[in-house]
Amino acid sequence: MTADTASMKQTAGPSFGSDYMGGAHPRVLEALTETNALRTPGYGTDSFCQEAAALIRQACRCPQAEVRFLVGGTQTNLVALSALLAPYQGVVAADTGHINGHEAGAIERGGHKVLALPARDGKITAKAIEACRSAWEQDETRDHVVMPGAVYLSQPTESGTLYSLAELKAIQAVCRKAGMLLYVDGARMAYALGCPENDVSLADLAALCDAFYIGGTKCGALFGEALVFPKPEQIPHFFSLMKQSGAVLAKGRLLGVQFKALFTDGLYEEIGRQALAQAARLREGLRALGYEPLGASPTNQVFVRIPAALYHQLIAEGLGGFWSVEPEDAYIIRFVTDWSTREDEIRRLLDMLEKAR
Amino acid sequence: MTADTASMKQTAGPSFGSDYMGGAHPRVLEALTETNALRTPGYGTDSFCQEAAALIRQACRCPQAEVRFLVGGTQTNLVALSALLAPYQGVVAADTGHINGHEAGAIERGGHKVLALPARDGKITAKAIEACRSAWEQDETRDHVVMPGAVYLSQPTESGTLYSLAELKAIQAVCRKAGMLLYVDGARMAYALGCPENDVSLADLAALCDAFYIGGTKCGALFGEALVFPKPEQIPHFFSLMKQSGAVLAKGRLLGVQFKALFTDGLYEEIGRQALAQAARLREGLRALGYEPLGASPTNQVFVRIPAALYHQLIAEGLGGFWSVEPEDAYIIRFVTDWSTREDEIRRLLDMLEKAR
Amino acid sequence: MTADTASMKQTAGPSFGSDYMGGAHPRVLEALTETNALRTPGYGTDSFCQEAAALIRQACRCPQAEVRFLVGGTQTNLVALSALLAPYQGVVAADTGHINGHEAGAIERGGHKVLALPARDGKITAKAIEACRSAWEQDETRDHVVMPGAVYLSQPTESGTLYSLAELKAIQAVCRKAGMLLYVDGARMAYALGCPENDVSLADLAALCDAFYIGGTKCGALFGEALVFPKPEQIPHFFSLMKQSGAVLAKGRLLGVQFKALFTDGLYEEIGRQALAQAARLREGLRALGYEPLGASPTNQVFVRIPAALYHQLIAEGLGGFWSVEPEDAYIIRFVTDWSTREDEIRRLLDMLEKAR
Amino acid sequence: MTADTASMKQTAGPSFGSDYMGGAHPRVLEALTETNALRTPGYGTDSFCQEAAALIRQACRCPQAEVRFLVGGTQTNLVALSALLAPYQGVVAADTGHINGHEAGAIERGGHKVLALPARDGKITAKAIEACRSAWEQDETRDHVVMPGAVYLSQPTESGTLYSLAELKAIQAVCRKAGMLLYVDGARMAYALGCPENDVSLADLAALCDAFYIGGTKCGALFGEALVFPKPEQIPHFFSLMKQSGAVLAKGRLLGVQFKALFTDGLYEEIGRQALAQAARLREGLRALGYEPLGASPTNQVFVRIPAALYHQLIAEGLGGFWSVEPEDAYIIRFVTDWSTREDEIRRLLDMLEKAR
Repeated sequence: MTADTASMKQTAGPSFGSDYMGGAHPRVLEALTETNALRTPGYGTDSFCQEAAALIRQACRCPQAEVRFLVGGTQTNLVALSALLAPYQGVVAADTGHINGHEAGAIERGGHKVLALPARDGKITAKAIEACRSAWEQDETRDHVVMPGAVYLSQPTESGTLYSLAELKAIQAVCRKAGMLLYVDGARMAYALGCPENDVSLADLAALCDAFYIGGTKCGALFGEALVFPKPEQIPHFFSLMKQSGAVLAKGRLLGVQFKALFTDGLYEEIGRQALAQAARLREGLRALGYEPLGASPTNQVFVRIPAALYHQLIAEGLGGFWSVEPEDAYIIRFVTDWSTREDEIRRLLDMLEKAR
Repeated sequence: MTADTASMKQTAGPSFGSDYMGGAHPRVLEALTETNALRTPGYGTDSFCQEAAALIRQACRCPQAEVRFLVGGTQTNLVALSALLAPYQGVVAADTGHINGHEAGAIERGGHKVLALPARDGKITAKAIEACRSAWEQDETRDHVVMPGAVYLSQPTESGTLYSLAELKAIQAVCRKAGMLLYVDGARMAYALGCPENDVSLADLAALCDAFYIGGTKCGALFGEALVFPKPEQIPHFFSLMKQSGAVLAKGRLLGVQFKALFTDGLYEEIGRQALAQAARLREGLRALGYEPLGASPTNQVFVRIPAALYHQLIAEGLGGFWSVEPEDAYIIRFVTDWSTREDEIRRLLDMLEKAR
Repeated sequence: MTADTASMKQTAGPSFGSDYMGGAHPRVLEALTETNALRTPGYGTDSFCQEAAALIRQACRCPQAEVRFLVGGTQTNLVALSALLAPYQGVVAADTGHINGHEAGAIERGGHKVLALPARDGKITAKAIEACRSAWEQDETRDHVVMPGAVYLSQPTESGTLYSLAELKAIQAVCRKAGMLLYVDGARMAYALGCPENDVSLADLAALCDAFYIGGTKCGALFGEALVFPKPEQIPHFFSLMKQSGAVLAKGRLLGVQFKALFTDGLYEEIGRQALAQAARLREGLRALGYEPLGASPTNQVFVRIPAALYHQLIAEGLGGFWSVEPEDAYIIRFVTDWSTREDEIRRLLDMLEKAR
Repeated sequence: MTADTASMKQTAGPSFGSDYMGGAHPRVLEALTETNALRTPGYGTDSFCQEAAALIRQACRCPQAEVRFLVGGTQTNLVALSALLAPYQGVVAADTGHINGHEAGAIERGGHKVLALPARDGKITAKAIEACRSAWEQDETRDHVVMPGAVYLSQPTESGTLYSLAELKAIQAVCRKAGMLLYVDGARMAYALGCPENDVSLADLAALCDAFYIGGTKCGALFGEALVFPKPEQIPHFFSLMKQSGAVLAKGRLLGVQFKALFTDGLYEEIGRQALAQAARLREGLRALGYEPLGASPTNQVFVRIPAALYHQLIAEGLGGFWSVEPEDAYIIRFVTDWSTREDEIRRLLDMLEKAR
């Protein structure tokens, strides 16, 4: 097998299905390879985790933050929220939020109600959160009612949209006033940070949140999420909480090595910018063909409504992924770009759509 | 940096601390590197997971088995036992069993009592298990008492010992008669399979157990465990159970790729044999210096009793790991070999011990 | 203290606040008094529980049913649903359902998501339930989504309304087709059975449900709920499930004695009829004063919208109870009758309302 | 019905089986009857609960204590310990402790490991508790090990024995030093307080414990336990924790009424003294017949070893209860007295034993 055919073979496979379908960014893989023969203490006590945590604290301009590395997003959400919430508290979230719809009930399995608010473009407002909390406070039977104890946001949201800094500050003000904690799921954080429309930095998140995570799995790592607690020692014995949920990686340095690579020389934001450039190209092409992207996503997720027949054809070709069944024999299909998306893939998709007209 | 110095640098670091301190076996890493640029569907639905599962079914001579890939051992134990046990059941285990002592209460967090029996050399007997179950059956208040619903064994045990085929069969007979399920934690399975004293094959485990896992993390993989249910469809919707415990890897193919490599060309057993050869060399050296290994471990774990001062010296040098504090100012130290253990490391350890005499 | 003053003292106190504010029906109290000096085996193994269960099986025309006695409604809901649901399943309920709003998150604490559907007059429809289940079935990511595994209804509902037999049959048909279980919360069952508009008998519930409970606490008992599983042995070791939730009463016969009294000589339905006669009288009086009852409740709960000032006055007098805060400086107040409601109480309430005009 | 037939009817039924086999003490029943026709607010917000709490605070000489009323012992243990323990903590208990053996795994179902220590006569020592905690502290892998976070004692113990004040103080000192909380299960507290050998008052418990409960069910009430938190507001939102475990009684005043009666005019201690006088009589008679009571119980539980045939005969007659199966065709039988035990019952038992010689 020549290098060319190897390359061709490796580039085959589905495209636009999601941002977890590829491997690691070459620089991340290289770091793993270089360090493979080393032996280090386990469970995140190694020097790579320390270095990665230091880089993240620096990126967050939050020298006192506690940084923990976990393997996946659902795991991070369930362990973090279990730690942030008292048993009698629930977590306010958009009804479209990942914890409400796509984690198989992990938050409830952990004992907490998800208090779902109707989302608009994947987002909930400070006003709606305040109303939810006020309704509880004014309810004379509130001791029988789940207390809204924390707010869960995704940045970017599951719909690809972004909270603005003003929106986040307003939400944080509601939380602070009511004594609720603010948690942000950043599974796709790179695609927020790399987005021209975005005005929320990691330092802003560290200033506003009680906890948030910086996603690795969908943003250039093989796997891994970096959970940041800006206020140190907020959660005592967090390691044991992780352990009892099976959320500690024995070879913890694998997480440190990857996040060190991602936070060296601006790689994490570069990954975001690459994906967004391709998403912009895709949106332009779709519009030219008459497919107006739905919603307000400025990030790496693009949604369009297409007829059922075309949907099945694209899925069969490994292009795009299921989003929802619609009335009138239609589907919403989602196209997701990432740092590895290539122009020829976009051309191939647009060609197929053009032929289908 | 020349290849030599790079190699020297990488080989620095702790030795004998545990079998999770290094990276992946070169052939596993190579497989990950080769497949890195591919895109595949997520969550274990890819072809690598299918191929790896097929290879494991073959190794287990159990064509109907269901094989699931998880990330780590505690995670696998907690998800598997939650699935195997009814809410009113507990799991019988050696008091030295990993789930009883070193998983931060994960099984209890999942709602189940660990019914700990006194272990001898890390093992429990069919007779003791039967007595435990009989005591429950004969207890006239048994509806108020946790029912022993499953048995947890480790092969090899936490003490490095092995269950013989005869012992396993006797335990399985007790389980079958009483309606209890049998689960085996194989975190270090390679070091059982590669051990001359071992007479229990994967096919035996598939024939005798309701579930068991074949460890990857400590046996050549970066991470990963292969959970085998020999009776198909025993656990409906197991994927959702995994998901709600945060135990699904988004880029699931990483597990398939690694286990495919481990179960190709006999790599998994080879890894075991390499580690055991080094353990034998270490035991011989220790004995020559008057340190008689404690217990009956024939596998890759070696335990010796040493004075506190020597213990602290060895730990400071990154040689061996904590096992327990003993009376009379002594410690038990544990030395663990794995496939990456080198002869020069053994010499270095023995030299230090010799000097300390 | 003369009998008169004693009586006056005892009849003082709040009225219409709820149906759990009084003591037991005199015949229930008498039965407890008569049996007080007896000694019986504990935990529900006594003959009174057996007799009461037999009477309930007879009332349900379901000779094979398993009947369990628990202390309270939230307790019964959480133990029953934990037993009926697999860990990966959630329970479909009206958003106004007691388990969704007023049990402090007990169902989620037990590990299950409440899949809330918008209610109309406290009820959900077969069509909406079917749509909820279909959406899950058609979702290509359904393994990541909580499976609707059971349906929770209240009869009467929290809004005082009733499911008709036709509605229940339609819901049961949806459940049966989809493999979902049907559970009915009958905390106020007497007020359904005693209602002229009701066409659902206990025998119908036994024929249609997988489990339901017949409320005692709000229907003449000091406390207690009778949980009926029409299909015997559906839930193995249910006693142990109760015990591990702290839901077993040591002096279990207290439940048997009370339910035996309630199901002797038609007392349970008589209690319902008495309360409904008073509710009818109250509705008539309210309408005459221009307060049109809200919603469609034909049972013992009456809701009216009143100005805030009047609301606070009535509450201060112990008349009625909080239902909700409304816009425009108004409240919804709830008036609940039970078997102990007296005509003079209704007159007193109507007089106050008249004076406030 | 004449007094005679009433008496005969009432004397039927088992004796010495346990202290939960009868009804309520006449004065408790009278209080329930007198208040039956009252209407009061629900869920423990009534004036009887306030009065009972005040009486208990007085008896505990702890004016600031928070007092909560629950229905049963297992329920109280599970809710209290869930509130006292952090998720990563377990509770140290005697292996014979009720939570370890007879609550069907309720504590584990709530997520916590019971760290069982070998008991002697039902008791554990300050030294053993300290050793357990020290082992955890000295364990270099302690983050992977369940932290001993609280100590559970029973007073009297399940074996009928008592902790002395000196023993309790020593245990509390260990707890305070290590930051562990101390919890005492007082299901049979009256039989400690009424015991001449006892030197631990309620005031001592309030001074030494973080929480303890005063048992009603086994000590004269129909049901109910009074949970005391000597340090107010230690557990925020405890009501909601109760509610989400189904541990709130709707007609909460029933608990207040009963505990008010029990703590009026010294009834609670009187109940204890009555039972202990009968237990003393029983022990004397047993010894005279050559049955030496086992263990060191000075309270209302008496244990003797008898041949299997005699055991089955006594059980068939409703005399005594199962304790354990012994080797050599023998049983341990338990005889329990309470305030309702009569001399004729003791004579009947002793007569049967005499005949069996």
